[in-house]
Amino acid sequence: MEEEPDEPIVTTADSYEVTPRNRVRRRPQRGFYDRETVHGILDSAFVCHIAYTIDGQPFCTPTGFWREGEHLYWHGSSASRMIRKQAEGLQVCLTVTHLDAIVLARCGFNHSVNYRSVMAYGRTFPITDADQKLKLMDNFLNRYFPGRAGLMRPATAQETKATTFIGMEIEQASAKIRDVHVHDDEEDYAVPAWTALYPVRQVLGEVEECPRQLPGVTMPEGMRPYRAGRRLDAVFLETMKTYEN
Amino acid sequence: MEEEPDEPIVTTADSYEVTPRNRVRRRPQRGFYDRETVHGILDSAFVCHIAYTIDGQPFCTPTGFWREGEHLYWHGSSASRMIRKQAEGLQVCLTVTHLDAIVLARCGFNHSVNYRSVMAYGRTFPITDADQKLKLMDNFLNRYFPGRAGLMRPATAQETKATTFIGMEIEQASAKIRDVHVHDDEEDYAVPAWTALYPVRQVLGEVEECPRQLPGVTMPEGMRPYRAGRRLDAVFLETMKTYEN
Repeated sequence: MEEEPDEPIVTTADSYEVTPRNRVRRRPQRGFYDRETVHGILDSAFVCHIAYTIDGQPFCTPTGFWREGEHLYWHGSSASRMIRKQAEGLQVCLTVTHLDAIVLARCGFNHSVNYRSVMAYGRTFPITDADQKLKLMDNFLNRYFPGRAGLMRPATAQETKATTFIGMEIEQASAKIRDVHVHDDEEDYAVPAWTALYPVRQVLGEVEECPRQLPGVTMPEGMRPYRAGRRLDAVFLETMKTYEN
Repeated sequence: MEEEPDEPIVTTADSYEVTPRNRVRRRPQRGFYDRETVHGILDSAFVCHIAYTIDGQPFCTPTGFWREGEHLYWHGSSASRMIRKQAEGLQVCLTVTHLDAIVLARCGFNHSVNYRSVMAYGRTFPITDADQKLKLMDNFLNRYFPGRAGLMRPATAQETKATTFIGMEIEQASAKIRDVHVHDDEEDYAVPAWTALYPVRQVLGEVEECPRQLPGVTMPEGMRPYRAGRRLDAVFLETMKTYEN
């Protein structure tokens, strides 16, 4: 099996520290540690998967999240098992994956996928102050849907109480990217197997307005990035830039 | 915050056992335990996320996988940390998530997403026999790309040795599905905030043939499901049915 060429780990002044926990061992040429790459992959997603352990049992839970600087946040019912345990402080690994292509090859072991992924490591903490929770809820909305928090009816005390926000500082992280075409062992290009790359993308469909939309209420400016047919990762990256500026 | 109506857990003779590990606590009306639902969600995906713990540190690793009956399989370099540890036998949680829509609301806390997810629990075991590995590699190929294994040049002893397959029996599993439109508290429908549902789908782009395709080699019949514009989950479900029949 031909390997892509090995290259030394590239880090910059703005890279996460590389330790045994986050070092990309397999195919190190696909590993990135700089904040720009890591943040860009995180900011292109809404759903992540979080690994955490309760009484020795690992769980892998999908959830919505967002980034603020070096912190990642998510929320859930204050009654949920995941949220209750994470509120006590747990080591977690938060992962985001974008599937970009399915890549065939001329031998089984060279089939692959193109992807962009990040694994971020840190310890969770709860946000318990009611005002802070309201602020985080507004941030969560405005980060994905610019200006949306200002359109909402205020949250009730009960809603705020029933919801817990969890945060983590990104202690370490690594990104892993494959972005190459069919890659076979040199002698295998003579094998008469048809090979190809199939691009994959996650896209928005046509918007379906609420059937109980009030008359005269029109789409707010902040939803303009959400156009039918657009790639979702591009929409999320665009709204993140709006949020940060 | 208005809850969707609570309904009792529905299980059938063909359901996974429901225990504290896999019971859907929050919004139990979204939880499903029957094999048809669980397998259908798993079979609609190529990439899963696996949670596992090494020395107390949880990891969440994305990887390609496939299902055979009550077993899930994946593979990796025999040298990788994840594979080496899983070969020793680890409890894992393998999760698949399909994002189907982004759903706005008239208050922050009622914003949601539509999704189909499965969390499957089990203990890993290695497949070490060379012939069994070759068989599994063929299965992996044929499951996603009908008939593809027969087109490949045979694997070398080195390739087989360098790759370890990991399996797990699905000891327990739960599916969780949200598939509803904008859902606000009744009194909030008077709030003049524009709301809508945005469908999301993962689709195939136009195929890009290998630039070094041999002359006269044409697309095999088995790749016909992979048509540009098609939903990837539908393609994977279709090829799984072909594989099982």
